[in-house]
Order: sequence, then C-alpha cells, then structure tokens
Amino acid sequence: MLNFNFYNPTNILFGKGQMSELDSLVPKDSIVLITYGGGSVIKNGILDSVKTELAKSPRKVLEFGGIEPNPKFETLMKAVALVRAEKVDFLLAVGGGSVMDGTKFIALAAVADEFKGQEEKLLSYGFNPVPVATAIPMGTVVTLPATGSEMNSGGVVTRGEDKLPVFSPHVFPKFSILDPELTYTLPPVQVANGVVDTFIHVVEQYITYPVDARFQDRTSEGILRTLVEIGKTTVDNPTDYEARANLVWCATMALNGLIGSGVPQDWSIHMIGHEMTALFGIDHAQTLAVVTPAMWRVRREQKKEKLLQYAERVWNFTEGSEDERIDAAIAKTEEFFHSLGIKTRLTDHGIDEAGIERIVKALEKHGMVALPETGDVTPEVSRKILKAAL
Amino acid sequence: MLNFNFYNPTNILFGKGQMSELDSLVPKDSIVLITYGGGSVIKNGILDSVKTELAKSPRKVLEFGGIEPNPKFETLMKAVALVRAEKVDFLLAVGGGSVMDGTKFIALAAVADEFKGQEEKLLSYGFNPVPVATAIPMGTVVTLPATGSEMNSGGVVTRGEDKLPVFSPHVFPKFSILDPELTYTLPPVQVANGVVDTFIHVVEQYITYPVDARFQDRTSEGILRTLVEIGKTTVDNPTDYEARANLVWCATMALNGLIGSGVPQDWSIHMIGHEMTALFGIDHAQTLAVVTPAMWRVRREQKKEKLLQYAERVWNFTEGSEDERIDAAIAKTEEFFHSLGIKTRLTDHGIDEAGIERIVKALEKHGMVALPETGDVTPEVSRKILKAAL
Repeated sequence: MLNFNFYNPTNILFGKGQMSELDSLVPKDSIVLITYGGGSVIKNGILDSVKTELAKSPRKVLEFGGIEPNPKFETLMKAVALVRAEKVDFLLAVGGGSVMDGTKFIALAAVADEFKGQEEKLLSYGFNPVPVATAIPMGTVVTLPATGSEMNSGGVVTRGEDKLPVFSPHVFPKFSILDPELTYTLPPVQVANGVVDTFIHVVEQYITYPVDARFQDRTSEGILRTLVEIGKTTVDNPTDYEARANLVWCATMALNGLIGSGVPQDWSIHMIGHEMTALFGIDHAQTLAVVTPAMWRVRREQKKEKLLQYAERVWNFTEGSEDERIDAAIAKTEEFFHSLGIKTRLTDHGIDEAGIERIVKALEKHGMVALPETGDVTPEVSRKILKAAL
Repeated sequence: MLNFNFYNPTNILFGKGQMSELDSLVPKDSIVLITYGGGSVIKNGILDSVKTELAKSPRKVLEFGGIEPNPKFETLMKAVALVRAEKVDFLLAVGGGSVMDGTKFIALAAVADEFKGQEEKLLSYGFNPVPVATAIPMGTVVTLPATGSEMNSGGVVTRGEDKLPVFSPHVFPKFSILDPELTYTLPPVQVANGVVDTFIHVVEQYITYPVDARFQDRTSEGILRTLVEIGKTTVDNPTDYEARANLVWCATMALNGLIGSGVPQDWSIHMIGHEMTALFGIDHAQTLAVVTPAMWRVRREQKKEKLLQYAERVWNFTEGSEDERIDAAIAKTEEFFHSLGIKTRLTDHGIDEAGIERIVKALEKHGMVALPETGDVTPEVSRKILKAAL
C-alpha cells in the first residue's frame, strides 16, 4: 500500500426527504446564492422546494441560473460579480456535477483577492490545490448522480477549448443532500452517463498496477459490481428507489478520495476524454466509454495484473488463458455500456482519423505528454489508443 | 437502503514515516498533553519520537501515562484535573483504543462546565451525543489497530463494573497518524485481538437483515475477506508491512461510520461482551469471539439472509442446503479465530452456568432488555446465546 492522506469533512445527508434539513444546515442569517443549471430544477419543482426551506429563516436568498454543462469560465465570472456585489456568504449548488464544479470555482474566485482581475489563473494549478487561504462556504443539493463533486474538493471548468481542473480543500461542500428521489426526472441518457461516469471513475483508480491495497481494491470492485447489477434497472425504471439509491451512493463513493487512497491512479482516460468533449462537444461520460476499452487493449501489458483481477472479481472469468480472460472482460464492459445505450467507438460520434489528430494536438498543447500511472502515455500512445477506438 | 447521515472530518495520515507530519499538525503555540497507556510506548521509543517532533515548535508538552485497558473513569478524571490546572488546549493520544477512548472522555469532561463535579453523568447518554458545546481538540498516533477510535466520535469508559459508551461529534480526532510500522512491537495476542475486534465490528453492521445497500455490503465483505487473508500472516509475521498495513486500514474503516451508513446495526454481541469484560476481565475481542458464533446459532432465522450472503461472498459456500451453508460459514469463522489463537467458548475462559447468570443480571441492570437490530434479544435470549457458547 502506498502512503496516503485522506481527509473529507463533507456532511452527507442521504435519503428520502432530507431536503427538510436544509434550514438547519444553511446559516440562518446568511446571504445565500442558489446556483443552478439550465432550468430543469425550475420545471421539476426542486428549486421551489429549496426556496421554501430557505425561507424558514430570515436569510436573504439570491439566484444564479444558467450554469451550462462543462461550465464556462465566463458564465461563472458573472456569478462571481454577483457574489461580490451582494456580499453573498453562502453558496448552495442545486444540480449535478457541472453546477457543483462551477460553484466551487465561484466560491474560490469571489474571495481570492490575490487573483482579482486574473481569475483565470486559478485554473492553472492542475491537480494541485490553488494557493488561496479561504473560499465562500458552500453546500449542495444533488440532482444528478455521477461526478462525486458533492463530496470532494475539485471541479473542472471550461475556458475556450480547455477543460481545466481546479482543486482546494476549502471547497469541500459543508454538506450535501443526496435524495435519490430528486433524480427521478432526469432524462435516461443522463442517468446512463452517470452510471458510466461512476464506473470509469473507479476504473481510473483501480485498473492500474497492484500494490496490495485490499480494502481499496475490494471497495472498487464492489462499486463496479453494483453498477453492473443496477445500471440498466435504474436507467429503465427511474423510480425504482433502491436501484437509484445504490447508484447515487456509488457515484459519491467513487470519487471522494476513499478508493484512491494508497493506490496508484491513472486518469489518462479522463485526460483524453476531456479533449474530446472540448473539441467535439461529446458528453463527458460518453468520451470515457470510447477511450476505456481502447486504453485497455493498447496498455494491456502495463495493466495486466489488475485487468485479470477485474476479469475475475467483477465478471467471474477464471477459465482460459490470461489474454482470453482480459478480452472477455473488455467485451463484457463494452456490452454493459451498450446495454445502457452508450456507444463505445469514435466513429459512433463521427470522429475519424483527422479528428484523432486534433485530439492528439490538444493533448500536446495541454502538456499531456506523459500521463500516469506509469508515465508512458505519450501523445503517440494516445494516438494509438484513439485509433484502436475508431 | 435506509436514510443516513455520514460525517467524518478526521484527517488521516497513513503510512511509513508519517510521524514527521506531527509538528505541522499540532498547533505550534499549544499546551499539549500526551496521553498514553502502560508504558509500551516508552519502551519501544514511540513516545520519544513523538516528543522529538513536538519539540520542533515552542509548545509546552505535558504527559499523562497509565491509562489502562478498559480505561477507568477515576484514572481519566486525574487527567481531567491536570488539563484544567495546566490549561491544556490540545490532547495527543498515543496508543490503542483504550488510550484514544479515554482521551475522548478527557477532551469532553475537562471543558464541560455544566457537568463539573458530576462528570460521571457524561457516561449516561448511551449512543446519543452528550449535550456539550465543545471539547478540547485532540489528535492520535495509533499503536494498535483494532477499535477504529482514531476515526470516529465515540469511546467506551469503565466505571466500576459498567462499561459505558460516550459519543460526541466534538471528539472526532482532528488528525490520526496511522503508521503500520509503529505497531510492529505489539504482542501477538494483541494483534490477534485486533483482527478479531475488527472482524466483529464489521459483523455487527453487516450480519443483520438485507436492505439492498450494495456498496455497504460489499465493502463489509471486502474487509472480512481481507482479514481472513492477512489475519494469520500479520499475527505470525509482525514486520510484514503489507499485511499489517491492510489490517491497520481495515480496522479504521470497520468503525468509522462508513459501512454502517444506511443499514441496520446490531451491536448485541458487543453489549453481551462488554458485561463479560467488566465482570471477568476477559479481553474485549475475546468476549466477542465467544458470543458471535453462539449469536448466529441462536438467531439464525432472524439473520438468515445475511448469513447466507456471508457464507457465499466471504467463504464461497454456494452448495448444500441453507442450513448447511450457514453451519459451514460459522465453523469457518470459528476456525479462523482459532487460527489466530483466539478461543470461542465460555468454558475456555472458565465461565460456567453461574457465570452466565451474572452476565444476564448485568445486562438487565444496564437495561439491555431489547437489543437491536430487531429488538428481540431479551435477557432470556441472551441467556440462550450464552448457554450455546458454553
């Protein structure tokens, strides 16, 4: 097991009706800004419920809607201006990963005086914490299970064609309300994306190389098996509470630091996928579903031991040669994604060899020239992976 | 899945050499009281290492040794007096579960003005949080993996013949240093106790009845399988870093709230075991090893579905009748405890029918008349369980 640091102070309130705790969770004398996305929370009534709860104490409540998927720096800076002008002292993100990620950026940028006028620099620290002393406290009401943003300290913000990570321990949400029923009205494709996104968050921390971290491995395998069991059910039957509850909790656990503690991590699937989203507008999870099988085919030697473990413990493949077991596990993974309506080839998204070159160029531009976990995913290897995904 | 609240703000530093972080973790201008047990930390040099680290900043450092296994109220009150007299503002527990649990009580009692002069009342709230507004902040350096106290908000204090729980969110350690190498000098029996204690902490939260909480179940099963794999190795080969590291992390994860979130919990094995320790001085883990198989034999109907799941997922028993699979899993569990040198019968500890009556009386005295998870473990059922353990 590798040395690690694990710290996660987010207060999770999980289950039916937890919205009723909101009034006790948000400071009663605060100036609150509710942040949300394209308006689904208006249509399905969740925003109204939030406002009703917040109105139970004499706080001032403001709203900022319109945070788009892959939240844009320019949009978020409008919220930053509002926060500064109105002296907002609590942020409440009501939405999915994009709203929560965007709100984390707002929380940092609004009070980072040393970055004032050059807030884009907050996006230049990669996976290192940004050098700030504080952030506006925030909470979340989660409406889309996928990103784990409700219980971690990071986000991804889009600036031009760049998808840029931003991290700070100051943006762990103070609380997150996870009521599976709040996710019932999601379009099926977003639920399917959430299942795949969660699955591949685990993959990035699990299918690397073994370091005898048994709790972490088995917890990862538990999430993967659960997703395989309940994925199609929760896409097809959105109001099946138990299936949805298992998805929601797995999505949080997949990216809150727990399964990645003390093990090597990859994230090259995400790095390549981010470029595909930025260049072609493909849904985040769908880019990952394309890259993952190809990544495993090209890097099967480097990942061999963990791929065999995955084949055995997630898919029960114990017979046949090593290559046969790995091939069977990759095929099963693709089959699983397909069963959710998620495609796994670049050509399914209209991307050809010329598109691959654009992706590889973007990786080079962003300095993604030696991706983890073994540092050998050069742009040339990325090209090979993308060609295997055609 | 049941509704739940999960909150755990302890900062974990895990691995070799993490002691070097101590100077940055303990406030530099604090008056620190180091608490420890019977003196093994003096012999093995850990106390000196701690003091060397703390001396790197101009803090005042005091010591309080002699916290016994099953820490006594009277002993802890001496530390409380010292804390008050010296205006200690940080507590550093260096030891195992008893030292950490005892330090939590000290942290609460020393500043709970409303309980001054009647601190024993802090022990009257059972598993509910004690009604106090604050506690002295504390950290831990763990030398014995077993209780999970390093990452939870509870402890158990002994007063006369009573083992009494005390809980408060204010006593989550601010940090815990978990360096497996610090546990190398433990006597084998204490390591074996730690393995069994961890195992049964999981059991109490897992072998109840199913509520379709798949992440929780699989994470529990992952800990149990890991303990079965590495238990004997880490008892026999104390300096096998990987085995010990897996034990240490499993011990923490077994009782930090994670696997118990959203599922029913039992804890009747602990309630009965606590009486055995208080009356007969048997090591905590060893009481649990006696009660567990008997509990399962007597309550196999109530726990049937989870016992079958345990038989299949932890021990790979899929053939034979339901009763055969359950019997096989119970036998394997006993065999596992025996392999660690831990006995599983009351008579192994010299307790006979008269002793059983004393235990049952103590349960009645403490109001343990309808134990969870189904509320049907009356004193009569406890007697039946204890007789099955003769």
